[in-house]
Amino acid sequence: MKPLSDYSIGFIGLGLMGRPMCLNLHRAGARMTVHNRSRAVVGQLVRDGIEAADNPAGVARRTDIVVLMVSDTPAVEQVLFGSDGLAGGLRPGTLVIDMGTSAVAATREFAGRLQQAGADFIDAPVSGGEIGARDASLAIMAGGEKSAIERARPLFEVLGKTFTHVGAVGAGQVAKAANQIIVGLNIGAVAEALALAESAGVDPARVRQALLGGFAASRILEVHGQRMIDGNFTPGGKVTTQHKDLRQALDLAAGLGLSLPATRLNMGLYQTLIDSGDGALDHSALIRLFRKSDC
Amino acid sequence: MKPLSDYSIGFIGLGLMGRPMCLNLHRAGARMTVHNRSRAVVGQLVRDGIEAADNPAGVARRTDIVVLMVSDTPAVEQVLFGSDGLAGGLRPGTLVIDMGTSAVAATREFAGRLQQAGADFIDAPVSGGEIGARDASLAIMAGGEKSAIERARPLFEVLGKTFTHVGAVGAGQVAKAANQIIVGLNIGAVAEALALAESAGVDPARVRQALLGGFAASRILEVHGQRMIDGNFTPGGKVTTQHKDLRQALDLAAGLGLSLPATRLNMGLYQTLIDSGDGALDHSALIRLFRKSDC
Repeated sequence: MKPLSDYSIGFIGLGLMGRPMCLNLHRAGARMTVHNRSRAVVGQLVRDGIEAADNPAGVARRTDIVVLMVSDTPAVEQVLFGSDGLAGGLRPGTLVIDMGTSAVAATREFAGRLQQAGADFIDAPVSGGEIGARDASLAIMAGGEKSAIERARPLFEVLGKTFTHVGAVGAGQVAKAANQIIVGLNIGAVAEALALAESAGVDPARVRQALLGGFAASRILEVHGQRMIDGNFTPGGKVTTQHKDLRQALDLAAGLGLSLPATRLNMGLYQTLIDSGDGALDHSALIRLFRKSDC
Repeated sequence: MKPLSDYSIGFIGLGLMGRPMCLNLHRAGARMTVHNRSRAVVGQLVRDGIEAADNPAGVARRTDIVVLMVSDTPAVEQVLFGSDGLAGGLRPGTLVIDMGTSAVAATREFAGRLQQAGADFIDAPVSGGEIGARDASLAIMAGGEKSAIERARPLFEVLGKTFTHVGAVGAGQVAKAANQIIVGLNIGAVAEALALAESAGVDPARVRQALLGGFAASRILEVHGQRMIDGNFTPGGKVTTQHKDLRQALDLAAGLGLSLPATRLNMGLYQTLIDSGDGALDHSALIRLFRKSDC
């Protein structure tokens, strides 16, 4: 396997997750070229010795592998196929990796169009939030051809702690939809459970401690349960992002004729949070719906 | 702290959880006296060298500490205050420990009545299911006076892996209600997530593996996710028990003026399972609601 310093990597989308991921690849020795819709964050990275391109096509012209970490599926389409999009600068064998959370059907369509243009495509969304992006402790769930996955492996080893090749193109996004369903519902569960303990006059910190030893134990109880107890809703993962991911998961389910009632209810609770102006908070802020003093 | 062989312990309720817990105390050297409504299981234990009493009062007359592991709150009331109930055989300083899942208000009332009769009371419900009872890996969440808790500690060390003194009498049951909310909702979450993966043609075993590395990681995904993949619904924790526990948690919430919409929906899904004849299966059978081939 080539050392990472032999790679020329493009990175498009430098938000809450993308920026620390890009910096981890840079520190691991890769030659990085970046692009971002808003330019302020690009200036900081250029001062760190990272190159910038004016548009996605420019990123593609200078790199072998391009990572996308943009906000949603329409943004992926714009970056790939919009004016000065990535597709305009592709070289034979360019590998495009979408590490954001995108719709499954669109992912398969994008992959087909890129492959026709001679490029490879992997969907490799992640779980672990901003902390996971910074600490390189992300869980990466990838869909694509085995040969393309092997090319991407050195990047995944820098960016994450666990990596699973889930299946063909789109399978990574299916796994991510499953992930967001569990994360969203489990945050809702911990919120209802700790709000009940608080209302009953029992210390939620002791309840969290007691429950971490049994079947209720989860990363969400550990991390987001502590956030709820501390009232620390600096994102992490935003309410609006969680809501968008659940809508995408429900669209996928609807297309398969599958009704997911708990996921639908959970999305409605996040919608209520957005309506009350809390959309930019961490998704653990869901407990505010159940705390009378917060209303 | 006295060795367990110095204890004379009563055990009432020898079901899925109670029987292995009783045997663990017996093997640890305690002198055990048991009672159970149905007699078949008592006969087996007597052959193992455990004494039997004809009724709860008889258990109380012969022991210092009595553990209850019966099916629900009315059964606890019957065992304590029914004809030939425990209260009739109490000696000064008898410690009664309810390790089942009982209603909080009733628990506080029972504790008051027993204390007036000169006995001590702890609520110490558990999480971990039948496996946890057998392997002595239960999480024990206790409510009661510190002195009573200290008396019970040697038993808890035999029966469980973690032990948390949550607060005053009733606080253990509040924690257990919180536990059942999280367990029930998280089973529902894993069921919807894995059913989505299956419907989308993606291997649910790989999805489970990918998700165990990220924020969706939980004991439920690990244990009950595997059960769903294997279609292994031999209980563990029964659908009917989970449903009863959720109803009790919702009653507690309602008494506090708290609405828990996801918990309510989740209880409805378990009700649907019961209505379709699956009440005696493990609670992970919830995924059957979302698998078309199972309908």
